Amino acid sequence: MNHPTPQNVSPGAAEGSSVSAFADSTSDYSATLEITKEVAEFVRTARLSDIPRAVVEQGKRSLLDGLGLAVAGSVTQAATIPGELIGSYGELRPDATTLGTGTRMPARFAAFMNGLAIHAHDYDDTQLAVRSDRVYGLLTHPTAPVLPSSLALVERANGTGADLLLGYLIGVEVATKLAEAIDPRHYDDGFHATGTLGTIGSAAGAARVLGLGDHETRIALGLAATQAAGLRENFGTMTKPFHAGHAAESAVFAVELAGAGFSAASDVLEARRGFFHAAGGGYDSTAVHEQLGRPWIFEEPGVSIKPHPSGSLTHPGMGALLDLILAEDVRPEQVERVTVGTNRHMPNALIHHRPTTELEAKFSMEFCVAILLLERRAGLAQFTDEVVRRDDVRELIERVDFGVAPEAEAAGYNNMTTIITIHLRDGRRLETRASFGKGSPQNPMSDEELIEKFSDCLAWGGVRTDPQALADRVLSLEEEPSVVELLRSFVVS
Amino acid sequence: MNHPTPQNVSPGAAEGSSVSAFADSTSDYSATLEITKEVAEFVRTARLSDIPRAVVEQGKRSLLDGLGLAVAGSVTQAATIPGELIGSYGELRPDATTLGTGTRMPARFAAFMNGLAIHAHDYDDTQLAVRSDRVYGLLTHPTAPVLPSSLALVERANGTGADLLLGYLIGVEVATKLAEAIDPRHYDDGFHATGTLGTIGSAAGAARVLGLGDHETRIALGLAATQAAGLRENFGTMTKPFHAGHAAESAVFAVELAGAGFSAASDVLEARRGFFHAAGGGYDSTAVHEQLGRPWIFEEPGVSIKPHPSGSLTHPGMGALLDLILAEDVRPEQVERVTVGTNRHMPNALIHHRPTTELEAKFSMEFCVAILLLERRAGLAQFTDEVVRRDDVRELIERVDFGVAPEAEAAGYNNMTTIITIHLRDGRRLETRASFGKGSPQNPMSDEELIEKFSDCLAWGGVRTDPQALADRVLSLEEEPSVVELLRSFVVS
Repeated sequence: MNHPTPQNVSPGAAEGSSVSAFADSTSDYSATLEITKEVAEFVRTARLSDIPRAVVEQGKRSLLDGLGLAVAGSVTQAATIPGELIGSYGELRPDATTLGTGTRMPARFAAFMNGLAIHAHDYDDTQLAVRSDRVYGLLTHPTAPVLPSSLALVERANGTGADLLLGYLIGVEVATKLAEAIDPRHYDDGFHATGTLGTIGSAAGAARVLGLGDHETRIALGLAATQAAGLRENFGTMTKPFHAGHAAESAVFAVELAGAGFSAASDVLEARRGFFHAAGGGYDSTAVHEQLGRPWIFEEPGVSIKPHPSGSLTHPGMGALLDLILAEDVRPEQVERVTVGTNRHMPNALIHHRPTTELEAKFSMEFCVAILLLERRAGLAQFTDEVVRRDDVRELIERVDFGVAPEAEAAGYNNMTTIITIHLRDGRRLETRASFGKGSPQNPMSDEELIEKFSDCLAWGGVRTDPQALADRVLSLEEEPSVVELLRSFVVS
Repeated sequence: MNHPTPQNVSPGAAEGSSVSAFADSTSDYSATLEITKEVAEFVRTARLSDIPRAVVEQGKRSLLDGLGLAVAGSVTQAATIPGELIGSYGELRPDATTLGTGTRMPARFAAFMNGLAIHAHDYDDTQLAVRSDRVYGLLTHPTAPVLPSSLALVERANGTGADLLLGYLIGVEVATKLAEAIDPRHYDDGFHATGTLGTIGSAAGAARVLGLGDHETRIALGLAATQAAGLRENFGTMTKPFHAGHAAESAVFAVELAGAGFSAASDVLEARRGFFHAAGGGYDSTAVHEQLGRPWIFEEPGVSIKPHPSGSLTHPGMGALLDLILAEDVRPEQVERVTVGTNRHMPNALIHHRPTTELEAKFSMEFCVAILLLERRAGLAQFTDEVVRRDDVRELIERVDFGVAPEAEAAGYNNMTTIITIHLRDGRRLETRASFGKGSPQNPMSDEELIEKFSDCLAWGGVRTDPQALADRVLSLEEEPSVVELLRSFVVS
């Protein structure tokens, strides 16, 4: 997994540096590219009017998705537990809104709450990779860490929708390009890129919102990178969404300190003792140098929006299965059994063959198949402990066989090829297959589907605003004069 | 730098794990030791009455040093800038005290402020290593990240000095043993162990103060490790002390969330996607398994207390030089030149040969020699921009030659052998040498010297309490009925 580039310095090359806490002038890092400077320049000079139309349109769709998810996530325990703690800090200044509850607090904490909430259902968007060795987990869920810092700071400054959109697009672009650049050791060894790269990208967007100068932007990146954290071992617990909230909060703290004259390294990304080297052992400069906005991630390779609150690996099969169920009007009582075949890595990730909780169900191919057969949808209302434990669900799960199919295995691990065969009681066999999930750029959700998800999310969080009208407003975010006004519609009444 | 142990799994062994964001059941990590469980058990079961007398005594000395430094650091810009930001959050609940200013705020923020302040002058204590390959920077400055979380939570709970002492000793023990255990890649690649291991140790102590149960303690460690961060590239800026404050704050947030029912991994230290593996590529179990409190770090190998606010590597030479100056009554006008010889790594760390700022002076052997010749002391009052730029200081610095001495080089890099020769104008040559700094366990500061430093620190921060009486009180901390009362003496009047 090591990519030898001029920036990749193995631990062995650092021999002797451990004797000094203070300097390391023996390294040959002086020849490195000035990536931090390049990022800061991009942050300060990007203009909304120069950004391709397709980027703006896709960005607004992810942003809409994120706002809905912030509402939906606000009622999870993962959000309410820290929400109570933060509420106990005193009479907080009402600078920024926690979506859903409507509680207002300093930007830092609102960013934390909204970031956590967006990631709370494992239902938020996913960066696609340019390189084939980085297909899945190395890359980020960009909206959860990035959106909340810009949102809180724009609200506090009584800024416009255009301010928010620009900060958000910059933040996503920086987070995703840096995620593509850091050596895959970062993810392989255990870091959660949404937490780590998300912090840095979030600070990039927030720095633009605050209007920081070149030096302050670089300092903000130094402060963000030094807080970048998150371990994958915490997956499957409330601490996974915590990472996204922590990233957004750290970003706000970083830009505020930088704006107030705090000092930090000005070359934190590429330096010998900086982020890429400490957290990944190096990076591939070709993935970031002169790549920011060339093209923008939202244009190429794109960002996936999840149609279901389950692991991405379930989505190709679920999309194909739902099409088949609807086309053939398959009813559960007709089904004798279902076989699902994939490459050998997918069962290794979707490990819950007999799930008993919502969280296990998200990573259970068997549950996803069963619930589509029973309800022909798989949204927030289907992923609950109650539904997972229903007799009809458990009975149908017993009729689903999930394993390796040689044909899918042969398609390679960068492919999510999923082959589904429904054996009907009348002897017929129905077969379907897919390699891309619904919601991926190759098979995008329609605006209608996106707004249906948004509507579900608002309802889940108890927000009764008209979803269609609100979605239209977000999808015209450049025209929105007041983010403060907009956010009033994202609060329970 | 790689230590092959059963827990060391190279990135290559994780082949294939990058295809899955969700699980990694192919790894052979199941055979690992349960280090997190072991730490949690230590945290919950350690009793002050079982801790050796020498450990308690040394612990109180470091704790006294830390309290003084928190006062001294409170007036630095590194502390006042975030202090203003935090003050802007609203009418904060006055749970815990920021030493020096006396501002009271929620425990989380007081821990941040005090942790940052203790580290602000690069004047706080240093863990010594057991192993020769980990002598300097890998290891932590334990008091800065660890003390403030226990202090804030004990104050909030209106607890006793004994509560504080126990939490602190546990925290230091955990931070230092884990720092010894993680693969040196952690430090070599760029992480700042005071920020990272400090977070985990700080949470360990704070978990005990809160009285968390076994499960909650392990969750708190999971939350702490997932926030553990800090990059060495930020050395030489305000962000270095920020790391210690960030560690202390993250620890408080971790234990409070764990106590409120938040979930996280329960085996975060040793797990395949956990802290040791993500941040270091592995760890050496023999440095931590069955090592907690066996013996305690404060007993063996000990913790150094700094006699001067400069880099540790200056201290052996400074101690020997001061003894020589006093013994021979050397006056600066007698000195023609001074040569200082060390191994080749020390000039590589003490890089500022002609310093112009306080911060550069801390890492300038030439300044340290010159100021001792001129003033016969080198405390906070000597390390200021004004003093560094004085004509007599700059003139004397020109007469100091600092370089490699073959004899010191031959003594090895684990040795800080420093050979100083003063060439007097009358032709005499005075020579002295040392390998251990004043303040190290081999050459400890007397209580009198420690209290003199403490007195300087209080004065620097504007606290006019009688230093001797206050120090006596801290050095009898087990008898202190109220930490709330004690802290009233650490505030400017």
